[in-house]
Amino acid sequence: MYKLYDYLPSGNGYKVRLLLTQLGIPFEWVGLDIVKGETRTPEFLQKNPDGRIPVLEVEPGMFLAQSNAILIYLSQDTPFLPSDRWLQAQVMEWLFFEQYSHEPNIATSRFWIHTLNLAAERRDQLAQKHQAGIAALQVMEQRLARQPFLVGETYTIADIALFAYTHVAAEGHFDLSPFVAIQAWMQRVQSQPQHIPITQTQFSGVSV
Amino acid sequence: MYKLYDYLPSGNGYKVRLLLTQLGIPFEWVGLDIVKGETRTPEFLQKNPDGRIPVLEVEPGMFLAQSNAILIYLSQDTPFLPSDRWLQAQVMEWLFFEQYSHEPNIATSRFWIHTLNLAAERRDQLAQKHQAGIAALQVMEQRLARQPFLVGETYTIADIALFAYTHVAAEGHFDLSPFVAIQAWMQRVQSQPQHIPITQTQFSGVSV
Repeated sequence: MYKLYDYLPSGNGYKVRLLLTQLGIPFEWVGLDIVKGETRTPEFLQKNPDGRIPVLEVEPGMFLAQSNAILIYLSQDTPFLPSDRWLQAQVMEWLFFEQYSHEPNIATSRFWIHTLNLAAERRDQLAQKHQAGIAALQVMEQRLARQPFLVGETYTIADIALFAYTHVAAEGHFDLSPFVAIQAWMQRVQSQPQHIPITQTQFSGVSV
Repeated sequence: MYKLYDYLPSGNGYKVRLLLTQLGIPFEWVGLDIVKGETRTPEFLQKNPDGRIPVLEVEPGMFLAQSNAILIYLSQDTPFLPSDRWLQAQVMEWLFFEQYSHEPNIATSRFWIHTLNLAAERRDQLAQKHQAGIAALQVMEQRLARQPFLVGETYTIADIALFAYTHVAAEGHFDLSPFVAIQAWMQRVQSQPQHIPITQTQFSGVSV
């Protein structure tokens, strides 16, 4: 059985929990507190030298890090990753966009403000991240004003990856009210079969 | 014929130039100066709303952004992307690592110091990026001390992606001399057939 090393408030971890649940794949969930340094212990660095969650233990001793790499791995040959070459290329484009232009601004703002309580102390850096995060949301808005999901006509791992931190962007003091296409898309994502919230602590019938 | 929108000093653009050359695929090269804002014009934003190079025009009007998404797209069914599922997952892991933990520190330091000449003005931010960049290099060093290439036994797009900014890290004031495994790996990468330097301005026999 897959084992997922994770931190409950993490949107990156949530992506993997959500996809595993929607694929109906049971998994063992292992919580680590990143604020307490539990992903920087010698033991965890053996699993992921980069010291970050999520990490999926695919088989005993076989570890895969990077949330979006895990999404690609799990979604191969499922409806969550289109088989068409051009559609698949666009999924990849959104996944890298998420990790480069979206997560470092929107997720990091949320982490500093909501988790670490550093809104005042990091005001200048947050202003920069806010501006770059808004730009990323505008790129999404533009796409979602034209089509129901980020790639093609169906829900894919691109939507899972971008939904993870967009839907909690308010916790990083982003105001989503001007982004009407994003709001409608978030409702479509939330109405997908087997959707779970980021706060859910019960997976495959097992409470954690 | 593919058309590549690019900026010559860009490591992200270089990844694509290098792979296309090693695949023997001719392409048209279109230079844009990011410092002069040429990727933020209304015309270019039609091609990539995120306003960044490289962008590959696959067919007229079909644009793919994100250097690593382009690498994946071009390397499908070639020796540059392993077909084995677990090896491929590890390639993806390195590609996301590169865009999250490596490029924003090592490439951005180089851009600020070498291109924009802001070493003094951004000293504090550079100190942070330097620390995070060293950590990324240590993750690479650890892997490359054990094996000749980042994934499996052969040269893949993971090596291309990580080589692009690692080999010019000195331009961002990173000292690679302690990283002996990285140095040996860079030599292996540079000795691959059809290797071109980042400064090369002649592709497929056409000067640009």
